[in-house]
Amino acid sequence: MAQKLIGKQTFVMQNPPSFAGHACAVGKKEGDGPLKNSFDFITQDAFFGEKSWEKAESAFVKKAVSLALSKASLSNSDINCVFCGDLLNQCVGTTFGMREAEIPMFGVYGACSTMAESLALAAMAIDGGFADKALAVTSSHFCSAERQFRTPLEYGGQRPPSAQWTVTGSGAAVLTSEGPGPYVKFVTPGKTVDNGTTDANNMGAAMATAAYDTIRTHLEDRGVGPEAYDLIVTGDLGLVGSKILCDFFAADGIDLASRHADCGLLIFDRDRQDVHAGGSGCGCSASVLCGYLLNGMREGRWQNILFTATGALLSPTTTQQGESIPSIACAVAISNAR
Amino acid sequence: MAQKLIGKQTFVMQNPPSFAGHACAVGKKEGDGPLKNSFDFITQDAFFGEKSWEKAESAFVKKAVSLALSKASLSNSDINCVFCGDLLNQCVGTTFGMREAEIPMFGVYGACSTMAESLALAAMAIDGGFADKALAVTSSHFCSAERQFRTPLEYGGQRPPSAQWTVTGSGAAVLTSEGPGPYVKFVTPGKTVDNGTTDANNMGAAMATAAYDTIRTHLEDRGVGPEAYDLIVTGDLGLVGSKILCDFFAADGIDLASRHADCGLLIFDRDRQDVHAGGSGCGCSASVLCGYLLNGMREGRWQNILFTATGALLSPTTTQQGESIPSIACAVAISNAR
Repeated sequence: MAQKLIGKQTFVMQNPPSFAGHACAVGKKEGDGPLKNSFDFITQDAFFGEKSWEKAESAFVKKAVSLALSKASLSNSDINCVFCGDLLNQCVGTTFGMREAEIPMFGVYGACSTMAESLALAAMAIDGGFADKALAVTSSHFCSAERQFRTPLEYGGQRPPSAQWTVTGSGAAVLTSEGPGPYVKFVTPGKTVDNGTTDANNMGAAMATAAYDTIRTHLEDRGVGPEAYDLIVTGDLGLVGSKILCDFFAADGIDLASRHADCGLLIFDRDRQDVHAGGSGCGCSASVLCGYLLNGMREGRWQNILFTATGALLSPTTTQQGESIPSIACAVAISNAR
Repeated sequence: MAQKLIGKQTFVMQNPPSFAGHACAVGKKEGDGPLKNSFDFITQDAFFGEKSWEKAESAFVKKAVSLALSKASLSNSDINCVFCGDLLNQCVGTTFGMREAEIPMFGVYGACSTMAESLALAAMAIDGGFADKALAVTSSHFCSAERQFRTPLEYGGQRPPSAQWTVTGSGAAVLTSEGPGPYVKFVTPGKTVDNGTTDANNMGAAMATAAYDTIRTHLEDRGVGPEAYDLIVTGDLGLVGSKILCDFFAADGIDLASRHADCGLLIFDRDRQDVHAGGSGCGCSASVLCGYLLNGMREGRWQNILFTATGALLSPTTTQQGESIPSIACAVAISNAR
């Protein structure tokens, strides 16, 4: 029987895997934002020396992976398996980024929740005894996402205030069975939740319900309150979704707001950077986690964080066919203490 | 350290998870083929009562899942997590199929290798101690795939002899920690392999190298020859890819051909059904596994099979940008003996 399952759906790591190395590579706009000092690499060129934005996205993946491995003093051949995915059709951002890596690969898709999902599966592979060293990596690119999901950039369509700005960047993390931490302690995968939102320019509202469901379930499964964490950080709910999430908890009589942060709000300065409701994309939570958050944990700023990346599982086709937006949130609890 | 890893990249299940239920739902053309008696459900309507092919694909997923659960005498709430994915952009076939299921979900993407990948992760989640009951499900639909990857059906473009026919259908399997078998014994995830093939109408040739790499690695990791299996079955190499795969092994002095089968060749009668090089799609290997293959194992026709689903990790965008086709194959060893 499942000896590492508590409550409804929370997985407990018996020997919590350690972050051995983590890195992020981002674009110019991200490098101009408030987290600029936390990024390992900032390029000024949206094409990253490539001929297309899709190829550029793969170049970000390669850069983040090589930096994370180098910080962990490991090479490709040391890694037992990689879990990766992104927003592009058929996940070609990460697939082509990992094409020459020669690492056994599990492709995953959780929209903007992909970094938490990849990290969860990497931790489970290690704690399950299958891998000693595993890699999690995701990416997104404003230009490749914009033309795929919305309209060609050249069209110059106006964006409503609830719209978010897809982050250009990639984050990669190496987990190992032994190490000095921080450690992955718990994983709570999310259920698909659909609150009926149909506006593809308001994904924060669609995803807030999923974040609420997963975070509440995680806390209930563990039998703790939000105070068990110094920081409960969502992926990319942005301004609209973050407010809804905190309101949901407030209605339950729980104060989430005082320890909640959102990667989409952290990565850009909304007053100065014209991103409307904040950042989004697989690369958003990945680059904030692999820079600002894990660096902050190493520096002792936080001891325990609940990293809850959120994803809107729509496609342009489902939107055109009048469907609402199913969403998901995957939570990974990270702690300095094993 | 990873105590369940042998050789380069093969995972050994310590307490092999058992298939508790498996089912497939397919379309009319598949139901007219040689495996018709192995399918649990055959619809005559490509729309499956829905208004679009994409929604029909999700209906196939729901049908396969409900049949598999019913055969296992389980309900949605008994399942700890589901691993699912498909070929549609943003994997909406399975996401929307699982939208109301309320099962913690891990979305995966391995193109046509997705059934093996989902099954591998489900087995690892159970053997890792995180889940007691897990579900693996994938789907594809000829019409939704054709218009997304190639040209609108109405265009009536001519297909070259190496082209394959995307299977309309879904296969679902429930794995449990205890049960009478068949059992998942080993998992060998694949590396991305790119042999330079650029013809998106010849995916068998692209994927054959990946199948060769994974099967050869699996056999080497286990220290056995092909005779360890009654059947080594690939996902959808079709006529062209199957011949290349057997030729690769023949060049190594290994006879694979005498125990090799391919789901893409099993599911259609090429002489009669005008499918050119055979079937393909996530639903191809899934519906052949969850019907013909697992039924055959239960009937004692085979004791040990190596299910090696293959995937071509391209997108229409990468093809248009002149990229070659990275491919992957994931192998899952299934045995009647625990």
